[in-house]
Amino acid sequence: MKRKVFFLSDSTGMTAENLGRSLLVQFPQIQFESVTKPFVDTPEKAQRIAAEINKEAHETAARPIVIDTIIDQEVSKVIEKSSCFYIDVFSTFLSPLEAELGVRSAHNVGHPAIFKEDSRTVDQAYMQRIDAVHFALANDDGMHLHRYAEADIILIGVSRTGKTPTSVYLGMQYGIKAANYPLIPDDLETRKLPAALADHQRKLFGLTIRAGRLSEIRHERKPNSHYANLRTCVDEIRQAETLYRQYRVPYIDTTQLSIEEIAARMLQRAGIERRVASL
Amino acid sequence: MKRKVFFLSDSTGMTAENLGRSLLVQFPQIQFESVTKPFVDTPEKAQRIAAEINKEAHETAARPIVIDTIIDQEVSKVIEKSSCFYIDVFSTFLSPLEAELGVRSAHNVGHPAIFKEDSRTVDQAYMQRIDAVHFALANDDGMHLHRYAEADIILIGVSRTGKTPTSVYLGMQYGIKAANYPLIPDDLETRKLPAALADHQRKLFGLTIRAGRLSEIRHERKPNSHYANLRTCVDEIRQAETLYRQYRVPYIDTTQLSIEEIAARMLQRAGIERRVASL
Repeated sequence: MKRKVFFLSDSTGMTAENLGRSLLVQFPQIQFESVTKPFVDTPEKAQRIAAEINKEAHETAARPIVIDTIIDQEVSKVIEKSSCFYIDVFSTFLSPLEAELGVRSAHNVGHPAIFKEDSRTVDQAYMQRIDAVHFALANDDGMHLHRYAEADIILIGVSRTGKTPTSVYLGMQYGIKAANYPLIPDDLETRKLPAALADHQRKLFGLTIRAGRLSEIRHERKPNSHYANLRTCVDEIRQAETLYRQYRVPYIDTTQLSIEEIAARMLQRAGIERRVASL
Repeated sequence: MKRKVFFLSDSTGMTAENLGRSLLVQFPQIQFESVTKPFVDTPEKAQRIAAEINKEAHETAARPIVIDTIIDQEVSKVIEKSSCFYIDVFSTFLSPLEAELGVRSAHNVGHPAIFKEDSRTVDQAYMQRIDAVHFALANDDGMHLHRYAEADIILIGVSRTGKTPTSVYLGMQYGIKAANYPLIPDDLETRKLPAALADHQRKLFGLTIRAGRLSEIRHERKPNSHYANLRTCVDEIRQAETLYRQYRVPYIDTTQLSIEEIAARMLQRAGIERRVASL
């Protein structure tokens, strides 16, 4: 039997989803089915969702789990009254925080613009992120080599190790300018760092992956090609890793990692600070 | 006086940051300074961070706020003993969830691979996201028009309204294939939908922005250009919005929104479901 889960938010729903996900994977015995409801910011919208929750509870005889990150108590109390197992994330932590900080939270006095600092800071962060994403796109796959001087980090690796999504994610999430350069067989056979990278050795970060996994990924793209052949993958990866060690390029195995994990581990290893402040 | 905040995680730290941020912006009277410590997955690493926390508490005479999303209690109890105001996110919610679900959480019995479902699902989600990010890049700024048939959504708007980062984010976060097409002055003067878009009218979603803001953003890129001139921005936006209304293209004002908010609102309005399941 599936247990229904509602992630509720007055913003994008990201916090409710991330937190809820981390909690619920702790119960692998149970199969959950989730739905995210973003921008629940009026009692009327909450009323419609409460009706959905009640319907689900009635039909399945198991009350849904609700992970609620709505700030406005007038809205969230509508949800609380529905037939659900209710986790009110903000209320749980705000009272103890108020006591610790010795001030009341804005929680009680209105509807603050959450996730927003003063508009100047937000503007700068927005610009920085946008610029960094555009940078990742413009410096994807070895194009525009002349902008490497501007890069915070340059990802290298054989085709389909995750360079492009990681570069873009570094820009999007951290405001970091990440270029990337594909190590193609011609590069690898020279057993030398490609000339374009020689001046930027300290910015390099290598990606690697298990050959079997790479072969699978490449087969999805070009089935039964020489490119996807396991032997090809084994050779390319071995040559790339030899290169990394030879030039002391730090590298990371992406086989078991999500894009978020690759990016976070890379920054930690490279000692690079985020450009966009988290707070 | 600044109050120090530690976001601790055994994974990327995203959940701790998002949740902590949402809580702390409720206290605009207080200035916080945050640091994120990802991959805290051994008691030894926790010990080093506990020492940092104690040092900070000692030097500033105000104990730091700690938002802890570490699953392994052996690790988190090291933090708990340090001189901090301690929010243990998982422990707070896991016990009530155990009672509701009638089973014990994996919390107590080891160290599960959080954020991972079974490996097949993860693989598929990874592929889907990677493909969608590559799609966004390949279909950025009106290139490769022939792949519009494959797109889930096509973003249109004048230069610098946020099309590119939003397209990439839709791929990254939701696995949705988003193309984008810039409305350049030549397009706008015809007062018609560009020919390349005519066959895909139902997939279109417009972006708009306040002219003053657009002018600021464009000045950052090309200072004192005709392109950045306020008058130019006013005209382009007016023409674009007229076009949206004429062809009944849904559109969104991005002036006050983060990339995450633009993406989430867009999907809600367009009724598009995420391709990558959140749970």
